[in-house]
Amino acid sequence: MHRELIEKMKSSKVSFHEADRMPDIDSAILARRTAVSEFTGVELKHITNFSFNTREVTKRNIENMIGAIQVPLGVAGPLHITGEYANGGYYIPLATRGCSVITACGGASARIFKDEMTRAPVFKVKDAKGAKELVDWVNNPVNFKRLKEKAETTTKFGKLLSLTTFVAGRNVFIRFSYDTKDAMGMNMVTIATDVAVDLILSETSAELVALSGNMCSDKKPAAINVITGRGKTVSADVVLDRKTIMDKLKTTPEKMVDVNYRKNLIGSALSGSLGMNAHAANVASAMFIACGQDAAHAVEASNTMTTLELTDEGLHCSVTLPSLAVGTVGGGTTIGTQKECLEMLGVAGAGNPPGANSKKFAEIIAAAVLAGEISLIGALAARHLAKAHSEHGR
Amino acid sequence: MHRELIEKMKSSKVSFHEADRMPDIDSAILARRTAVSEFTGVELKHITNFSFNTREVTKRNIENMIGAIQVPLGVAGPLHITGEYANGGYYIPLATRGCSVITACGGASARIFKDEMTRAPVFKVKDAKGAKELVDWVNNPVNFKRLKEKAETTTKFGKLLSLTTFVAGRNVFIRFSYDTKDAMGMNMVTIATDVAVDLILSETSAELVALSGNMCSDKKPAAINVITGRGKTVSADVVLDRKTIMDKLKTTPEKMVDVNYRKNLIGSALSGSLGMNAHAANVASAMFIACGQDAAHAVEASNTMTTLELTDEGLHCSVTLPSLAVGTVGGGTTIGTQKECLEMLGVAGAGNPPGANSKKFAEIIAAAVLAGEISLIGALAARHLAKAHSEHGR
Amino acid sequence: MHRELIEKMKSSKVSFHEADRMPDIDSAILARRTAVSEFTGVELKHITNFSFNTREVTKRNIENMIGAIQVPLGVAGPLHITGEYANGGYYIPLATRGCSVITACGGASARIFKDEMTRAPVFKVKDAKGAKELVDWVNNPVNFKRLKEKAETTTKFGKLLSLTTFVAGRNVFIRFSYDTKDAMGMNMVTIATDVAVDLILSETSAELVALSGNMCSDKKPAAINVITGRGKTVSADVVLDRKTIMDKLKTTPEKMVDVNYRKNLIGSALSGSLGMNAHAANVASAMFIACGQDAAHAVEASNTMTTLELTDEGLHCSVTLPSLAVGTVGGGTTIGTQKECLEMLGVAGAGNPPGANSKKFAEIIAAAVLAGEISLIGALAARHLAKAHSEHGR
Amino acid sequence: MHRELIEKMKSSKVSFHEADRMPDIDSAILARRTAVSEFTGVELKHITNFSFNTREVTKRNIENMIGAIQVPLGVAGPLHITGEYANGGYYIPLATRGCSVITACGGASARIFKDEMTRAPVFKVKDAKGAKELVDWVNNPVNFKRLKEKAETTTKFGKLLSLTTFVAGRNVFIRFSYDTKDAMGMNMVTIATDVAVDLILSETSAELVALSGNMCSDKKPAAINVITGRGKTVSADVVLDRKTIMDKLKTTPEKMVDVNYRKNLIGSALSGSLGMNAHAANVASAMFIACGQDAAHAVEASNTMTTLELTDEGLHCSVTLPSLAVGTVGGGTTIGTQKECLEMLGVAGAGNPPGANSKKFAEIIAAAVLAGEISLIGALAARHLAKAHSEHGR
Repeated sequence: MHRELIEKMKSSKVSFHEADRMPDIDSAILARRTAVSEFTGVELKHITNFSFNTREVTKRNIENMIGAIQVPLGVAGPLHITGEYANGGYYIPLATRGCSVITACGGASARIFKDEMTRAPVFKVKDAKGAKELVDWVNNPVNFKRLKEKAETTTKFGKLLSLTTFVAGRNVFIRFSYDTKDAMGMNMVTIATDVAVDLILSETSAELVALSGNMCSDKKPAAINVITGRGKTVSADVVLDRKTIMDKLKTTPEKMVDVNYRKNLIGSALSGSLGMNAHAANVASAMFIACGQDAAHAVEASNTMTTLELTDEGLHCSVTLPSLAVGTVGGGTTIGTQKECLEMLGVAGAGNPPGANSKKFAEIIAAAVLAGEISLIGALAARHLAKAHSEHGR
Repeated sequence: MHRELIEKMKSSKVSFHEADRMPDIDSAILARRTAVSEFTGVELKHITNFSFNTREVTKRNIENMIGAIQVPLGVAGPLHITGEYANGGYYIPLATRGCSVITACGGASARIFKDEMTRAPVFKVKDAKGAKELVDWVNNPVNFKRLKEKAETTTKFGKLLSLTTFVAGRNVFIRFSYDTKDAMGMNMVTIATDVAVDLILSETSAELVALSGNMCSDKKPAAINVITGRGKTVSADVVLDRKTIMDKLKTTPEKMVDVNYRKNLIGSALSGSLGMNAHAANVASAMFIACGQDAAHAVEASNTMTTLELTDEGLHCSVTLPSLAVGTVGGGTTIGTQKECLEMLGVAGAGNPPGANSKKFAEIIAAAVLAGEISLIGALAARHLAKAHSEHGR
Repeated sequence: MHRELIEKMKSSKVSFHEADRMPDIDSAILARRTAVSEFTGVELKHITNFSFNTREVTKRNIENMIGAIQVPLGVAGPLHITGEYANGGYYIPLATRGCSVITACGGASARIFKDEMTRAPVFKVKDAKGAKELVDWVNNPVNFKRLKEKAETTTKFGKLLSLTTFVAGRNVFIRFSYDTKDAMGMNMVTIATDVAVDLILSETSAELVALSGNMCSDKKPAAINVITGRGKTVSADVVLDRKTIMDKLKTTPEKMVDVNYRKNLIGSALSGSLGMNAHAANVASAMFIACGQDAAHAVEASNTMTTLELTDEGLHCSVTLPSLAVGTVGGGTTIGTQKECLEMLGVAGAGNPPGANSKKFAEIIAAAVLAGEISLIGALAARHLAKAHSEHGR
Repeated sequence: MHRELIEKMKSSKVSFHEADRMPDIDSAILARRTAVSEFTGVELKHITNFSFNTREVTKRNIENMIGAIQVPLGVAGPLHITGEYANGGYYIPLATRGCSVITACGGASARIFKDEMTRAPVFKVKDAKGAKELVDWVNNPVNFKRLKEKAETTTKFGKLLSLTTFVAGRNVFIRFSYDTKDAMGMNMVTIATDVAVDLILSETSAELVALSGNMCSDKKPAAINVITGRGKTVSADVVLDRKTIMDKLKTTPEKMVDVNYRKNLIGSALSGSLGMNAHAANVASAMFIACGQDAAHAVEASNTMTTLELTDEGLHCSVTLPSLAVGTVGGGTTIGTQKECLEMLGVAGAGNPPGANSKKFAEIIAAAVLAGEISLIGALAARHLAKAHSEHGR
């Protein structure tokens, strides 16, 4: 029977989902993998190595599982951080050289300015007059309260914080903004908003076009995320002394300021960029994969602004991430290896109070991004980049 | 002695790099992992599972390795593609439902419009007059030929195609554009440009500030990548018939057009976005991880433009990715599991002629992104999104 | 003595401001004009023609006056508008053909969604921790109340509505948002914010860098104005019937929809534009000059979003201007010719209640921009543009 | 008969264009003005004052003329400029204080980097495959030559320089780039492109959607104009010494650098702006009105990048305008007062060689924008802005 199913999958007579009917999960994974292997003629021996709980993973994280990808994991640190949530030395699950520079200078500070996850359905109304009526309805405090109550029936932790309306002719976008505590929250806010939308549909003449109208904006390079924030808005900074810069980065504070000014500010501006940084997405992306986050949120992480300024006390270096979408519960956070990485940072699962773990995690990522910026800007200032590429093949 | 090293790493007396001096790689990995485990008090049993060649990986892909992250791998397809390079049915190493819709309608077409990887150093000159002199020097065909010769001494495959200059006061950016064949090429163009820069420095009074001046622009949400392209500029499209849409997506072509118009065009525009799509970064990101690409390049993939248009023949659906940075050699493409995924697609290693594999890979990714767009837009049009989130927890 | 002063001005021994010491204004104007005429050898006979009150104009509108520019004034209309403020037929002080189309279809509707003028000083603090402290201070409702009281001491009409903070490392921007009633308000909010800033400086350790930190953002092509609005956020729309389109515009609704979709949405998106329109800045700019507005605010007017959609009732056409900065008091609104244009629209001076005139004016401009969009999109759909250019030389 | 026509216009029975049938132009102007005056009840006595040639103006510049707007004209300068085209002291037809600072420091330098006017029609093709075919056709050098020949049949001066293609699914944009010599050239390139388009339509299966597809991009806040340039790309710069800054601007170089860095770079970046300047649009707009330019091109002028940097020689100040659309022939350049202003600058009419006058004009505008930036940044650094607003009412 397995053979029969495999043959049917190979000839596209049935879809891969058919294998889900098999009595046990591992047989289904094997059947699908066999079909792919035989169809493509590729021996698949590496993707068979994994140690996570397949029942949980197939239920929550992946459709049509056939195995696992192994992503090599490095470590950097300890990175000393003084945030409102993160405090102490942390081993960062990925490799970047800037950590030792920061730690040598007393550690990074970090602060969170905003923490809201958004979902913005788009509605169609009759005309500009109808748009005004819908906007007025939404802006009525009584209706906000009712929408909040409905939305919050779907979630134990999520809280609706505010609604913002945007109009383009007969298109009205309503941006729902939530506190999602330790969850990254895309799932939570989608479900909550879906229910709230029903109330709008039942009391106004607006027609729902799509539950997400791209004013959210999820995984798109959008100015709205820079300006209003999405997920965590977080800064990390440190003051580096001249000696450490010369010893460890083989360059001077002045050269680093010059690189940041001409590359990250002038160059980014000329290129029409929403992010003014050297490679924030690299560090964020590596940590996202290690820690079970949605890797595509590297898009929002790339909105980072990096500043380097000479002060009386030394070289002040900062990063500000306006739209860092991360969480410590849900998503891929419970997969074996990913969970171990979160545990290394002391942020696995729900925090106490709720939200504390994801905020701490955000501070750590910001500090790691800062380390990455210092490392690359230092290398550019010392003209070491191409050499590093040659040596490490990346 | 191991114990001694471990204790020193735990107390930050030596850096993790010290372990690289140990005689064998696996001992170094173990020593680092033990140090992290004992310092953080976290038992690290999952990250120990991996099957790739540690010698190769530690040499090329990762610093301070302590183990591996397992990313669950799903499969979708077969997705039929008619490109100039990809031709036939492909199993896509990740899960998205749109594949069956596309294949049921005869498969996707794909075309590549441009294929250039860029690196843009920033120079400092005296003033506007000096900027003009440098620009004139670079635009001199004789000098282009000399820069090309120098740059190409560093690479077997790379070809310098063109130089473009940009000025802001006394800052001059020179954007080097290369054909990098089957390599994604960031490494290659950095090394080649570094050598070419020496010629500029020796013949002009310009001063190099940074080898990358962010007019490249790598992993930043920059308009220049949308407008001039970076990596592959590739389109994929398909015409869907009404019956298939109604049967498989439970909605109508008209509703899907409406969702795309109001969400992906109007909504994206209002949000100040450089990408007009539903979730291109999701699909690209999943394939990047599976196939050994640089996951942070999801940033450039998010620049995708999606169109849905009713025509006499059915619903024409397209995606255009102006800046898809992918390769089939170098980077993480040789790691065990990642290589298997590339093999499943028939694109592992160098193509014949050189460049053919990475172009074929780009066509497949574009078709997969198209499948993802059709799937999500269909779900939104049918108002199934929140339900899907509830069921799959993602 | 005149001759002496003229000679001194010609030889740059004294500045043109010296002429302001002359006993009467017209002599000063003449002296300066003579100096310029003799220095450049250009007979200046046209710029001597003007009829406005030179005392008032030199006091409020212009430095070193030497004459006046004559800008030819056309008229279009009547354009029928049904707004909340504008109601009836209006002669638009400039020329565009779309008015008759709109009026033939029953007139345009218009609605105002937001009305706030902003000024955003930038402060320097010590670090991220200091930024958080400043942000917390500003977000304290007690301090908002005190800032509001101080700011409002400087203005009879202006009301401080809200404060929004933005952070980049140690840079904190505080965006002050005001209701400025019938004034465009840049002047008013600058003065009010300047006073409020003193309170911030006296109670926090923040240092003022500049009273305008470009998060305002005035006369720059900035996404923040599209997303949060600045000045009036206003929509105008109309439903055109097929017959009128075919008779007057010599094209079809379908073709106009196609032009708007491919040009104003797809084309604008590809070009990295913040405005999705055909030529909104043209109409706005012409009306600004005619009506004594700040002509450079054409920049913000160019953020307009134009939509054309086929509905059961006909072709729904809309424009939404997120950042229309206009007023009916102050600035150039009292100059003779400009005042006449405002009077033609019934909006000269302060409204009753205050703010009503500027809102009515905004509705009229939105409707005129709508007329301009319909006119040009119609011409493009009928392929008449080049022909029109040939005939009219513009 | 006049009375009859006036009554008909008042009651909208005939359009204002009817008056063009009257035997003489001044009667037509009078008739229209009377109709407007009687309909609105506004005495129109100021707009009757003008001295330009009504025959020429009504033929080339304005439809349905009823009079003229008087815009007060100030003068600044002399501003010393050392460009490749502008050389000497110039009186700038508008008021800004920075001129004297620049001139006191030896004058501004200026350079032009690019000079191309663009028009980008949008075509519809069948699919991605069809898009590739069209792009290949356009990129064929033989076809470029033929398109160039056709386009240039329509113009004595214009030269087609290059074609660039952009694709979004089945939409293909072809950006035609011309040297338009002394004309701003929008008119010229529209007519030339219209003719070239016919060749494309006759030899390919592409369908023209609109002669302008917004990839041009005209009067829209578009990144493409920043990145590829449009009209003139021009820089102006000057080195200011400390003493002059302290004497004339009452501040220090350090403070000015700080204002530029935090306001024009950081603040602009955070606001999602394509222009990094203090108020370039103000100066450009004022000169455009004075000199007969298209005032709505303030939009592209607002793309200006301003830099202030401390060097060994003093404070280096620069502006770079990537997209300055100006001309000295055509448009409003021949209207009496406007022509006088161009004559004051020595740039009225065609240059020798053709193009020299418009390039010289561009250099002067850039230098004037530089003066405006220095003036405002100085005032902000000295905290004089609000005071200046209070005094001058603007």
